[in-house]
Amino acid sequence: MAFEDLPVGVTFTTEAQAIGLQEILDFARIWDPQPFHIDAEAAAASPFGGIIASGFHTMLVAFVLTLRAGVWTDASMGSPGMDEIRWLQPVRPDDVLHVRAEVVSSKASTSKPDRGFTVIRYDVHRADGVKVMTYSATHILRRR
Amino acid sequence: MAFEDLPVGVTFTTEAQAIGLQEILDFARIWDPQPFHIDAEAAAASPFGGIIASGFHTMLVAFVLTLRAGVWTDASMGSPGMDEIRWLQPVRPDDVLHVRAEVVSSKASTSKPDRGFTVIRYDVHRADGVKVMTYSATHILRRR
Repeated sequence: MAFEDLPVGVTFTTEAQAIGLQEILDFARIWDPQPFHIDAEAAAASPFGGIIASGFHTMLVAFVLTLRAGVWTDASMGSPGMDEIRWLQPVRPDDVLHVRAEVVSSKASTSKPDRGFTVIRYDVHRADGVKVMTYSATHILRRR
Repeated sequence: MAFEDLPVGVTFTTEAQAIGLQEILDFARIWDPQPFHIDAEAAAASPFGGIIASGFHTMLVAFVLTLRAGVWTDASMGSPGMDEIRWLQPVRPDDVLHVRAEVVSSKASTSKPDRGFTVIRYDVHRADGVKVMTYSATHILRRR
């Protein structure tokens, strides 16, 4: 796949992956040690009512799923940024997540003829269909 | 600190932290295994000219620095989202990063009197002053 293969409107769906309690704790202890991510008692007493995954953890699980989907992976030259990251619902232990993606913008670079900028909107869903997170990423993709 | 202590205009700066080659590789192998993050030869041949940190890694190092700064940490009730994440410069092994933060919006919740929404803009700088990343996060903060 190259930049040209991902015009506006292309969609893809990733495989699903479970996010377990131990992973949630291990990730959050390093990267987001807030009580509602790492302390079962404090989490139970919080508005969340129990341990929830760090939003960064959810984002990374989603990102790896999209990378593994292999749609833009081989063409990737990095990313200048992401927009409108929204954590819509808490992600709890044993939730199973998958990602639905849609290309929303595609522009060839005006200064570098070897690449283009592809904006993809990602929606992260639980197995029951509820959308738990959404974000857009700009990918720099190699042209043919 | 509570929501009320962080009106628009408040600024703070975090401590600095180095990001080493081994950490970059370890993080990227799990969360962002693209060649320019994990493969020295491929990275050298890429437009980056060598291994660079995953943008997610830079984001998390910055986030932990802000959490450790302790400005909003005790008041935190989570986050509904982030905006305008921009990776401005590659982060390379042994770069030393710190974060400068500024409150850009502060609004009490209209539905829940115990909390408010505080938007903070974060600029991630290298030791030489160059800004390598910027992003905004909305924090839900406890009111007094």
